Amino acid sequence: MTTSAGHDHIERVELSGHIIDSLLLPKVLDFITAAGGSFRIEKISIGHDRSDASYALIEVRAASKERLEQILADIADHGATPVHTQDARLVAADIAGAFPEGFYSTTNQRTEVRIGGRWIEVADQEMDCGILVDAAAQTARCQAMTDVMVGEHYIVGHAGVRVLPEAREMQPQGFEFMNSPVSTEKPKGVAIRQVATELVRAKREGGKVLLVGGPAIVHTGSIDHVSSLIRRGYIHRLFAGNALATHDIEHALFGTSLGVRLDSGDILEAGHEHHLRAINRIRRLGGIRRAVETNELRAGIMYECVKNNVDFLLAGSIRDDGPLPEVIADTLVAQAEMRKRIRDVTFCLMVATTLHSIAVGNLLPAWVKVVCVDINPSTVIKLADRGSFQTVGLVTDVEPFFRALVGEVDRLEI
Amino acid sequence: MTTSAGHDHIERVELSGHIIDSLLLPKVLDFITAAGGSFRIEKISIGHDRSDASYALIEVRAASKERLEQILADIADHGATPVHTQDARLVAADIAGAFPEGFYSTTNQRTEVRIGGRWIEVADQEMDCGILVDAAAQTARCQAMTDVMVGEHYIVGHAGVRVLPEAREMQPQGFEFMNSPVSTEKPKGVAIRQVATELVRAKREGGKVLLVGGPAIVHTGSIDHVSSLIRRGYIHRLFAGNALATHDIEHALFGTSLGVRLDSGDILEAGHEHHLRAINRIRRLGGIRRAVETNELRAGIMYECVKNNVDFLLAGSIRDDGPLPEVIADTLVAQAEMRKRIRDVTFCLMVATTLHSIAVGNLLPAWVKVVCVDINPSTVIKLADRGSFQTVGLVTDVEPFFRALVGEVDRLEI
Amino acid sequence: MTTSAGHDHIERVELSGHIIDSLLLPKVLDFITAAGGSFRIEKISIGHDRSDASYALIEVRAASKERLEQILADIADHGATPVHTQDARLVAADIAGAFPEGFYSTTNQRTEVRIGGRWIEVADQEMDCGILVDAAAQTARCQAMTDVMVGEHYIVGHAGVRVLPEAREMQPQGFEFMNSPVSTEKPKGVAIRQVATELVRAKREGGKVLLVGGPAIVHTGSIDHVSSLIRRGYIHRLFAGNALATHDIEHALFGTSLGVRLDSGDILEAGHEHHLRAINRIRRLGGIRRAVETNELRAGIMYECVKNNVDFLLAGSIRDDGPLPEVIADTLVAQAEMRKRIRDVTFCLMVATTLHSIAVGNLLPAWVKVVCVDINPSTVIKLADRGSFQTVGLVTDVEPFFRALVGEVDRLEI
Amino acid sequence: MTTSAGHDHIERVELSGHIIDSLLLPKVLDFITAAGGSFRIEKISIGHDRSDASYALIEVRAASKERLEQILADIADHGATPVHTQDARLVAADIAGAFPEGFYSTTNQRTEVRIGGRWIEVADQEMDCGILVDAAAQTARCQAMTDVMVGEHYIVGHAGVRVLPEAREMQPQGFEFMNSPVSTEKPKGVAIRQVATELVRAKREGGKVLLVGGPAIVHTGSIDHVSSLIRRGYIHRLFAGNALATHDIEHALFGTSLGVRLDSGDILEAGHEHHLRAINRIRRLGGIRRAVETNELRAGIMYECVKNNVDFLLAGSIRDDGPLPEVIADTLVAQAEMRKRIRDVTFCLMVATTLHSIAVGNLLPAWVKVVCVDINPSTVIKLADRGSFQTVGLVTDVEPFFRALVGEVDRLEI
Repeated sequence: MTTSAGHDHIERVELSGHIIDSLLLPKVLDFITAAGGSFRIEKISIGHDRSDASYALIEVRAASKERLEQILADIADHGATPVHTQDARLVAADIAGAFPEGFYSTTNQRTEVRIGGRWIEVADQEMDCGILVDAAAQTARCQAMTDVMVGEHYIVGHAGVRVLPEAREMQPQGFEFMNSPVSTEKPKGVAIRQVATELVRAKREGGKVLLVGGPAIVHTGSIDHVSSLIRRGYIHRLFAGNALATHDIEHALFGTSLGVRLDSGDILEAGHEHHLRAINRIRRLGGIRRAVETNELRAGIMYECVKNNVDFLLAGSIRDDGPLPEVIADTLVAQAEMRKRIRDVTFCLMVATTLHSIAVGNLLPAWVKVVCVDINPSTVIKLADRGSFQTVGLVTDVEPFFRALVGEVDRLEI
Repeated sequence: MTTSAGHDHIERVELSGHIIDSLLLPKVLDFITAAGGSFRIEKISIGHDRSDASYALIEVRAASKERLEQILADIADHGATPVHTQDARLVAADIAGAFPEGFYSTTNQRTEVRIGGRWIEVADQEMDCGILVDAAAQTARCQAMTDVMVGEHYIVGHAGVRVLPEAREMQPQGFEFMNSPVSTEKPKGVAIRQVATELVRAKREGGKVLLVGGPAIVHTGSIDHVSSLIRRGYIHRLFAGNALATHDIEHALFGTSLGVRLDSGDILEAGHEHHLRAINRIRRLGGIRRAVETNELRAGIMYECVKNNVDFLLAGSIRDDGPLPEVIADTLVAQAEMRKRIRDVTFCLMVATTLHSIAVGNLLPAWVKVVCVDINPSTVIKLADRGSFQTVGLVTDVEPFFRALVGEVDRLEI
Repeated sequence: MTTSAGHDHIERVELSGHIIDSLLLPKVLDFITAAGGSFRIEKISIGHDRSDASYALIEVRAASKERLEQILADIADHGATPVHTQDARLVAADIAGAFPEGFYSTTNQRTEVRIGGRWIEVADQEMDCGILVDAAAQTARCQAMTDVMVGEHYIVGHAGVRVLPEAREMQPQGFEFMNSPVSTEKPKGVAIRQVATELVRAKREGGKVLLVGGPAIVHTGSIDHVSSLIRRGYIHRLFAGNALATHDIEHALFGTSLGVRLDSGDILEAGHEHHLRAINRIRRLGGIRRAVETNELRAGIMYECVKNNVDFLLAGSIRDDGPLPEVIADTLVAQAEMRKRIRDVTFCLMVATTLHSIAVGNLLPAWVKVVCVDINPSTVIKLADRGSFQTVGLVTDVEPFFRALVGEVDRLEI
Repeated sequence: MTTSAGHDHIERVELSGHIIDSLLLPKVLDFITAAGGSFRIEKISIGHDRSDASYALIEVRAASKERLEQILADIADHGATPVHTQDARLVAADIAGAFPEGFYSTTNQRTEVRIGGRWIEVADQEMDCGILVDAAAQTARCQAMTDVMVGEHYIVGHAGVRVLPEAREMQPQGFEFMNSPVSTEKPKGVAIRQVATELVRAKREGGKVLLVGGPAIVHTGSIDHVSSLIRRGYIHRLFAGNALATHDIEHALFGTSLGVRLDSGDILEAGHEHHLRAINRIRRLGGIRRAVETNELRAGIMYECVKNNVDFLLAGSIRDDGPLPEVIADTLVAQAEMRKRIRDVTFCLMVATTLHSIAVGNLLPAWVKVVCVDINPSTVIKLADRGSFQTVGLVTDVEPFFRALVGEVDRLEI
């Protein structure tokens, strides 16, 4: 048995599941080598069929203890667990709003932690959090840094934590064909049909669909399409910013979006003020809900949300004019609200907003299906980079996307 | 009268037409200053109404004779003509395939030349050509450099040449609103309706519509839309490359485009060979026309072109596989053929091809309306940069564009 | 005198300054026609020289009183003032945080208001605000909607307000050549030299330079360049978000940026946690300043800001992890802070951030020079669309930009 | 042994090499399933170390003979060879310029064919060709479709052909870190250093470096950088189009590029003619070489090519003005010339040209290292899509790239 010279620090890890076709084994071997370690595959059994699981036992070596631990931490995020498991190490938080040093930092994958010899599933899975453990109650859940309170127990180090990465879906007609989401030269019709299928399935099966949207939904003339989807019960949550709501209301009140008449395309020059007048009007009325109740606001996406009890959340940003009364100006409060409202989301459609899409992408667990639509490939790429097999990017134009989506939903409804 | 020190070389130019609202006067004043000259507006009369023409008499000064001439040449391209006109100066070509030194280089604007005291309109207007004059016959026309023959007379210098720039169109519902074609956040519906209007008008009035298209037309699944437009008589010329025709035929023969099934979106891996097999098949049959005649090719864009007598021109490029027999491999021959076939074109739709769009854009006179559609803003920007008020860019996705265009045409047809 | 049929509502406006070469006259005529009005130029006198001012008296007509007022409002933003001026109309705010209906909405151009027969300059010029007037004290200033208090007097309507648009700069070596900022094919060297000149001039003349930056400054490896500019006194304010500061500190503590080693380019996989550990560390220490004081943070952009008394402002967003203690989570508080700190800014460099750039662009008056640098043309286009002649876009890569900028500054310093 | 119902057509294939970490095994399994087949891994042995090879024996099943053959064809391109090998089947070409039906279509990977029981390496490896076999001489080589002559023997079907895919390079400091070439937020310094290392290595070891370049090299002001690299012996071939050469010569003769002064950034309006005058001048002189010999052309990239015996090839396109005499207008002739001149190329740098980059990418075998540089991500993506592990994309600005590259070469030279 020859090993790389000086690689004297050794640990054994095991990997199981669809480790070949989910690319887990190649990834893990990659990381070991890239991080300067070496490996030996001690045992491997490959499932004969796609449905069979596989198993690999890998010896990992590195030149220093620190490097070895770094490597083990890396590959643990991809499901490689040390053979000699032990309980997770808990340390009490000594400062509010900060984890103990060496805290375990979460991924968005299903995670289990070993407490008192038993593996417990971590609740509220979310990336870039700590894991708060109540050892007595045998519960564990993800907690954001700002919410840490003194005395709470958090996991430190990687021991006693195992990650169970999602398998790729295997249906040949799945979203899979859109592996390279950047390409603008793929047939979009098929992809849109699949989004429609997800919407219809969610409605039938009681799933929750979250739309995360930017103002281009309004500018490109998609208000009617989105309004129709809301009315017909295909969208159950809306996360957006001040701009989408403002331009939607501007359109309802003045017929323009950023001063452009959506019906004729004419630019009303003084129309650049319309969005400000719209905000001012709603502030005078006391908010969007009040404006609907008093019959001042009678159409549009926000109107439909109020009328159809679609839970909407408007998160503030530093570029907001106004803002509208419902906008949550405090970004930490907005994050906390978003967290609460994504718990039961089963499908997420992100359209034409980088800021909100990434914010939501940070909060969602890896197993929630996400489709990200933008005409600008860079947004789609950024989302896909956060990568789970469940995120699909579609580089296309917003209005035609919604127009086609409504058409496909119509067809499926019959 | 104070002039900039040392600006002793003087010439007077006049400018007329819609010089204020076509931005001609500001442009001309800009160029003079930017080029280091100075000006004095000696006389100006502004039309009271938009329909009235205006007139300006401008004194241009520069520090050297060369600089003055450079300035006069610049502003002449925007319609400023020296007051003291003279006949154009003619020099005989001494070398085949090259103009005499100092040749007048054309714009794509309407141009007149003074020969024997009379102003003659230049035929076959095209940018970056020379003006070939037959003084005896009192005719003038644009000639490409490669076509110059020894002994032909070409205009040298700017004397005796005047350019008559197009006025902007003034209809408020015109294409004008798309001034900043780059923005992807404009309502596309209106723009597409206007393209449909142009197609229907051309059909009614006997205009000729040229489609310049790239392979993304096929990849995005637009074959049926384009086929329908051809069958119904809305497209009269097709300029494309080997790729569009190949993938269209690949789809007709194998149901794939670059190996992707357009109906289901499935990637047939070995399908990457299909385009090559398609080309080979057509070469074996002796060409696209023969393939249609022998009933081997039974659907698609190329099929419809053959069946509906739409004149198609396939120009070669160095990235071509094959190519198909009808592809003109010699780029100079292809240019000459394109030149011939654009003479009567009244509307040009450029979709998803930078190379062919710019090639055609170079050949078309400024007054032919051009709409350029691409999901990549950079192509649209490049076309718009060549700028005439007649060129409109639309940053959108190909398939939804055609789908919506067919829908709008349907509506207008009733 | 013939006017368009039925255009019976008439008003006279006058326009003065560099109305031809600043394109004001063409713009104003455009808007009138586009908005369905008509015009007659009653008098015009054009400056003979570029340095002379021009003057136009224009009769504007429209079919209804409302349309006429809309038109007058439009063109007023471009400097066209009614001949029969009157005092501005003031209305007391009846609701906190909202303007009276019909409020005058500001542009970012120099503005004067007529109070008691006298023209007063509006202070704190900013777009999309109201104008708060203290008639007794004869003062007026821009006020954001959120800051409105009951009883304050705001201008309503356009009467008594005049806008004095900036003239274009006329130096031939100015930024002007970058008219089409989108094009990535322009020589960048010249543009970068001009940015360097602005930095050196600000330092010499006591100007204030604001850098608005995104995390790509760190990811692309520009920490040393920016640190050097700060140390040498070329940057006086820094506006950024949690991400720039976090990755800068991540690099100082761990040598990585988002887990990528900046010196070797190696990806440390577990490095994805580094940014979170960096934030946690700083939170434990009580903030960036404390981390510098206690010698825990010893290098990087944030370190240099603290050491060199560069005023930094970190504005929060919903995609923030952590965030760092200095980050202002409330977006309205952040806006208010930004407002305060831009008052004396003379030059603003925006690099690689759409969110912060647009936020700052909304606050700056039109006469502050802005250069916006991004490798993604869409950010640059968005900024340029807000358009003043003072905003210049540069589509280029961040690290080479800063590398070249430091080089040019070195050269100018000698 | 359970198999999918009705999957009665069976074949066994084997796969060897670095099948796990080169992702070959996952890819092959993917293709089988995606194409509707099923598999069973009958035997697998995984190398213990990275340097060890692995081996897998896979049973492939499908519902029909055709489907099975399609699958076998697919996976053969990734190195999976049927266990029961046989000789390649040869068919004589019956038509000039077309392969026999069913011809084997090549990849750009190393390929061997079995003739008379012996495996022979295929020469001139190039994708999308046929394999021409001389059974008597026991030789085989790739042949383009246009070059087929009647009576030549070509391989038909996949039997007797095996593909030997390249392994990924494993050095941790390699180009590998740029896995997601699209991202514009990576540290470029490291990547540029690696390109410099390749140039220096090629010079030392007698490798041949091919530069494929577009006109943005000139527009962005990189003439001096590229000239320096040529003079110092780092570039051995130049493939470009009419535009690069024209604007380079325009700059040498007039100091402008497309009318923009590269030193000051001033736009010389009439400068738009300069490129045409440059072409005309060179045509009058009889070509670029003659212009250098007669001392009319005294600087620039083309000048340096002539002076330093760098073999340059200018390929024509339909958007060319002129063109210059050295431009090969016939695209098939240009392809044939390119083919000849890439045979000994060891490193290829593609800068700012989609057309020429893809054309060259089509011709190069997979094992030649390619770095593709463009500020537009879409070009880089297109190149990377043709995917071999040897192609690296760099989204960055051209001039700073070359400036930094020259700097790195300087450093390495010492």
